[in-house]
Amino acid sequence: MLGSKPCPHCGKDVVIYRNPVPTVDIIIFDPQRGVVLIERNNPPLGWALPGGFVDYGESLEHAAVREAREETGLEVSLTGLVGVYSMPWRDDRQHTISITYSAVASDPGALAAGDDAGNARFFQLDALPDLVFDHRDILGDFSSKILRLQTSSTVCSTD
Amino acid sequence: MLGSKPCPHCGKDVVIYRNPVPTVDIIIFDPQRGVVLIERNNPPLGWALPGGFVDYGESLEHAAVREAREETGLEVSLTGLVGVYSMPWRDDRQHTISITYSAVASDPGALAAGDDAGNARFFQLDALPDLVFDHRDILGDFSSKILRLQTSSTVCSTD
Repeated sequence: MLGSKPCPHCGKDVVIYRNPVPTVDIIIFDPQRGVVLIERNNPPLGWALPGGFVDYGESLEHAAVREAREETGLEVSLTGLVGVYSMPWRDDRQHTISITYSAVASDPGALAAGDDAGNARFFQLDALPDLVFDHRDILGDFSSKILRLQTSSTVCSTD
Repeated sequence: MLGSKPCPHCGKDVVIYRNPVPTVDIIIFDPQRGVVLIERNNPPLGWALPGGFVDYGESLEHAAVREAREETGLEVSLTGLVGVYSMPWRDDRQHTISITYSAVASDPGALAAGDDAGNARFFQLDALPDLVFDHRDILGDFSSKILRLQTSSTVCSTD
C-alpha cells in the first residue's frame, strides 16, 4: 500500500510503501512458575508478553531470542510457533503483525526487567493480570494447546 | 532499523523506518492432484507457490485468500499454518517474511493463471519442478507434516 510523509527539508510529500510491521512475542514458559510477563514503561502501559520489532536483515527466531534477552534478562531456547496475529486493530498505534513463539529459559531464576520494562515476573496461566494488545487471546491459544497436549499424552499409549 | 531515500523534490535524504516486509504464500493441496504452483511473469522467473504482499490494514488470512484468488482463480479455505520463513537471503530483492498457509480449493478444476502468473498447474509433491525463493524448503516442511499426520493417523486408534 502506498503512503506518504512530508520531506523534512522541503515539506513536500514523499511516497513510501507501507506494510504491516512484523514483530515477535515470546511466551517463556516454566511448568512450575508459569509464563513471563513484563510491565511496559511506554504506552500502552500495562502487562504484556516480552517482544518487539523485527530488525531488517534479522530472522524472526533471532529477533525472538534477542527481545527475550533484552526485556527479561533470560537466555531462551525457542520451542515452537504458537501462532501469527495480524488483526489491524490489535495495536492502536499502527498495523503490526505478531509472530509468537513459545520458549524455555536456561535459568528462569535470572529473570530481571530490562529495556522498556518496569517489572518482569512469572504468572500462572490461570492467574493472569489485565494484558495490553491481544496478548490475552494469544495466551489463551497457548493455554489451550498445552492442555490439549497434556490430555493427548495420557489417552494414547503404546503400552 | 533506520534507512533513507532521497526526496524526489529536493533530492535530500528522508529518514524512513525499514522493516522486513510481510508476505503470504499458500499451499493449495488436493489429495489427487497435488499442490498448485504458478509460473512467475516477473523476476525471479520460475515456478513458485502462489502468494504476495500483505496490504496495510489487512489480516494475513485475508491476504492469503485474496492472493490465492488473484493468482490461481481458486476460492480457497485455509486449513492450517505451515510455518514462517524469514531468512534475510530468501529473496535477493529485499528482506521479506513469508507466512505460509495450507488451503483447499472449493473447485480445484477452476484453476487458471491470474495476476503476475504465466501458468498455473497442480504438481505431485514427489514431482516438483525447480522452484524460486525458498519454496522447495517450504514444500519440504509441508510434505513432512502430511506424511507424519498420515502415519500417526494409522498407529493410534481407540478401536
